[in-house]
Amino acid sequence: MLTTRLPSAGFSITIRIAVTADASSIGRLTTCVGEAGAIVTALDVVDSDPTRVLVDLTCDTADSGHADQVVKTLEDLDGVDVRKVSDRTFLLHLGGKIEVSSKVALRNRDELSRAYTPGVARVCMAIAENPADARRLTIKRNTVAVVSDGSAVLGLGNIGPAAAMPVMEGKAALFKRFGGVDAWPVVLDTQDTDEIVQIVKAIAPAYGGINLEDIAAPRCFEIEMRLREALDIPVFHDDQHGTAICVLAALTNALRVVGKRLADVKVVVSGAGAAGTAIMKLLLRQGVGDIIAYDRLGALHKGMPDLTPTWRWLAEHTNRDGYEGDLPGAIVGADVFIGVSAPNLLTGDDIAKMADKSIVFALANPDPEVDPRAARRHAAVVATGRSDQPNQINNVLAFPGVFRGMLDVSAHEFTEEMALAAAMAIADVVGEDKLNPTVIIPSVFDARVTPAVAAAIRATVKGHPVPTGPGAVPPEELDEAPPETF
Amino acid sequence: MLTTRLPSAGFSITIRIAVTADASSIGRLTTCVGEAGAIVTALDVVDSDPTRVLVDLTCDTADSGHADQVVKTLEDLDGVDVRKVSDRTFLLHLGGKIEVSSKVALRNRDELSRAYTPGVARVCMAIAENPADARRLTIKRNTVAVVSDGSAVLGLGNIGPAAAMPVMEGKAALFKRFGGVDAWPVVLDTQDTDEIVQIVKAIAPAYGGINLEDIAAPRCFEIEMRLREALDIPVFHDDQHGTAICVLAALTNALRVVGKRLADVKVVVSGAGAAGTAIMKLLLRQGVGDIIAYDRLGALHKGMPDLTPTWRWLAEHTNRDGYEGDLPGAIVGADVFIGVSAPNLLTGDDIAKMADKSIVFALANPDPEVDPRAARRHAAVVATGRSDQPNQINNVLAFPGVFRGMLDVSAHEFTEEMALAAAMAIADVVGEDKLNPTVIIPSVFDARVTPAVAAAIRATVKGHPVPTGPGAVPPEELDEAPPETF
Repeated sequence: MLTTRLPSAGFSITIRIAVTADASSIGRLTTCVGEAGAIVTALDVVDSDPTRVLVDLTCDTADSGHADQVVKTLEDLDGVDVRKVSDRTFLLHLGGKIEVSSKVALRNRDELSRAYTPGVARVCMAIAENPADARRLTIKRNTVAVVSDGSAVLGLGNIGPAAAMPVMEGKAALFKRFGGVDAWPVVLDTQDTDEIVQIVKAIAPAYGGINLEDIAAPRCFEIEMRLREALDIPVFHDDQHGTAICVLAALTNALRVVGKRLADVKVVVSGAGAAGTAIMKLLLRQGVGDIIAYDRLGALHKGMPDLTPTWRWLAEHTNRDGYEGDLPGAIVGADVFIGVSAPNLLTGDDIAKMADKSIVFALANPDPEVDPRAARRHAAVVATGRSDQPNQINNVLAFPGVFRGMLDVSAHEFTEEMALAAAMAIADVVGEDKLNPTVIIPSVFDARVTPAVAAAIRATVKGHPVPTGPGAVPPEELDEAPPETF
Repeated sequence: MLTTRLPSAGFSITIRIAVTADASSIGRLTTCVGEAGAIVTALDVVDSDPTRVLVDLTCDTADSGHADQVVKTLEDLDGVDVRKVSDRTFLLHLGGKIEVSSKVALRNRDELSRAYTPGVARVCMAIAENPADARRLTIKRNTVAVVSDGSAVLGLGNIGPAAAMPVMEGKAALFKRFGGVDAWPVVLDTQDTDEIVQIVKAIAPAYGGINLEDIAAPRCFEIEMRLREALDIPVFHDDQHGTAICVLAALTNALRVVGKRLADVKVVVSGAGAAGTAIMKLLLRQGVGDIIAYDRLGALHKGMPDLTPTWRWLAEHTNRDGYEGDLPGAIVGADVFIGVSAPNLLTGDDIAKMADKSIVFALANPDPEVDPRAARRHAAVVATGRSDQPNQINNVLAFPGVFRGMLDVSAHEFTEEMALAAAMAIADVVGEDKLNPTVIIPSVFDARVTPAVAAAIRATVKGHPVPTGPGAVPPEELDEAPPETF
């Protein structure tokens, strides 16, 4: 069990301290902080006089309670005066994390006349006469709405639209950073399915794609399905399909490592929510041997009463032998465990009872279904969603490249073919010569990932000109000819 | 009448031409273009060989028909080969005019952990526990939605949401350029009042203000009123209040120039739509002498049948003498004419019958109610909405500063007190020593305008700390103390 959370940059604080200016005093500070379990990352002098020094000490802590402890430990030291405590994460969030920038200069009358009145009127009329021109002449070319009602945010649950904004802003920042995709947070102060569908339909004209985010199951399934029917731009719920793509990519490589085939393996999935359902559907269509879907009510099986339509479908198409016991029993002899549920459901001893050369993906965040250190003692390949463990399965590997590719080919929908292409592209970034049990998936910072995913997505749409790079405008769209000679 | 539109940068084209390389050939090109009525602004060599040269000739034309003529004139020249014609305005619009940028670096794991998981979760919880923190910790601090249904776009009318996007993107670019305000285009594929109100309420949590734009009267009045009741952030229809603020600013200075008082003047307003109604309400509350409101049905007067609620209110509160004749008759003996309606409604002879030292604001765009050159022969002060005439009344003077100020004080609503304060601030930017009949309003590029308007707005909200500048974070919001010493 991961009972002691490790210090991380997510809980970084800066403490301003006045202390006597002798050689041992600073040392006492850093020793004290270290003994309190935090990691000192920086020491900066603010001011000094002949006898004292004012320093900013920055350190990583494990969580806010731990941060308070660390500060208290310093306050208790003699000759030490704690002036102020700043939280780097909160400071970074002041005023939000994204901004809108103009791509066109507006320095003088001429530029104003082209970007605004009167020149802009002709551009409006061109679109009015030919609506397809919106994809050439407006931000629809490159922009995606990140839509949430705040009903299932990270591991925090139903915190509502305003509190969801930091996550949605962060998502938009990631879209731009990794995919060159412009993304805008659209948080909705309603959780009514009909209203959400109606609102997204109404705002759609500005966008080239819709990314649904952190909307609770089972409403997310109906919302996605109805929007796909209604809109002519792709609709993609990242919690479902982004996760499924990354899991399939990791599983593909894990099976290569252990030398098994998907058609031969028995998979147990804990959590039949948005992610679990999408993962299972994708695996079933890839011809997986068997799946047992496990959720709060137990193992989904045929004849189980009171199921939502989605769970009924899963119950009909999984669990060949009709298992009805508990989760530890379900994984006995199983080849693969995939957890997208809750922490601390399994122990190392449970993992030991899986098949030989087992694969464990324990993706509950921040605490996985099983302690990865315990799992690694028994399974051949272990992955989590944590950044401080090997094999991090992180949706950032998928959504930027998926939307980059779809926008580049003016796709009207996200298809299963695209999901498979993206998964294979991610898996193949890890070359055969690099593949091993602790490297089954690339790092999110591997610059090859997004271009590979985008190219794979584009290749699924036949007959569309391939742009020269992320965000480049195809020559056909330019009125100017390329540099020419006689 | 402005029968020949002058060339402008809004219709700038670049023509790629191959021509024999002798001294007189280039001269023939520029002469030909000039005789065709266009203005050459640039000549750039693309390629050459011993006998020929390939040039890009850039010129301003009057409209697209004129541009075609100019190109044809060149094609008809001997020894001249026109290769390509590029429209600079359309080129500028490729892929849209705005983008979303991250304000936070995402270069490595540490930065990801603060801007996204796991650090971001604490920021979400802080807002969940204290919703007012959304204004500190998210883009709500500085962001405005520019909302339109595309039903009354510029002079183009009801062109719908997709075709309205170039104007809304341009508006967002102007908000950022002039006010440092982040603005996002929200175009809606519905013109139903109830739906628009419901949708804007649903998306409001992300925003610190709502700017309604290009929504047709009379629906815009009800939409604005209902949203003001429903939301705790300011709702401002720029076509109404931005125009009214700028007109009041210009009128204030024009009255100073001619030496008249608002309480003594008779004003005729042509156009009782969004702009006209707001202008008239503001003037009435400022104690204007009398107003006649003129629209398609004629002069609004008491007892006129079949009026919308807004027009009935105007009919009750204007037109003291119950005038029922035509527009030229209405302005006989009037001190001020304000047109926010349609082109070519009045002649110079009509203006001649106004009172001595008359003021004429002919703001219909692109062609005013009366030719300003003819009006200037009779009126003391003439203003239009055109950038190629003196005294341009342009809403860019108001909305950036108004929202800058409201965001800085976390205003909950836009008040009439703010409208007056903004108008006076704009008027006062033109110093007494600079004021004359052709300078009654500052240029939109006058850097003093937006700060002055923002300061005036902030001053109307008592007891709020004044930030150090546009977009600056007040020291109180920072956890860090300012640089300190012992």
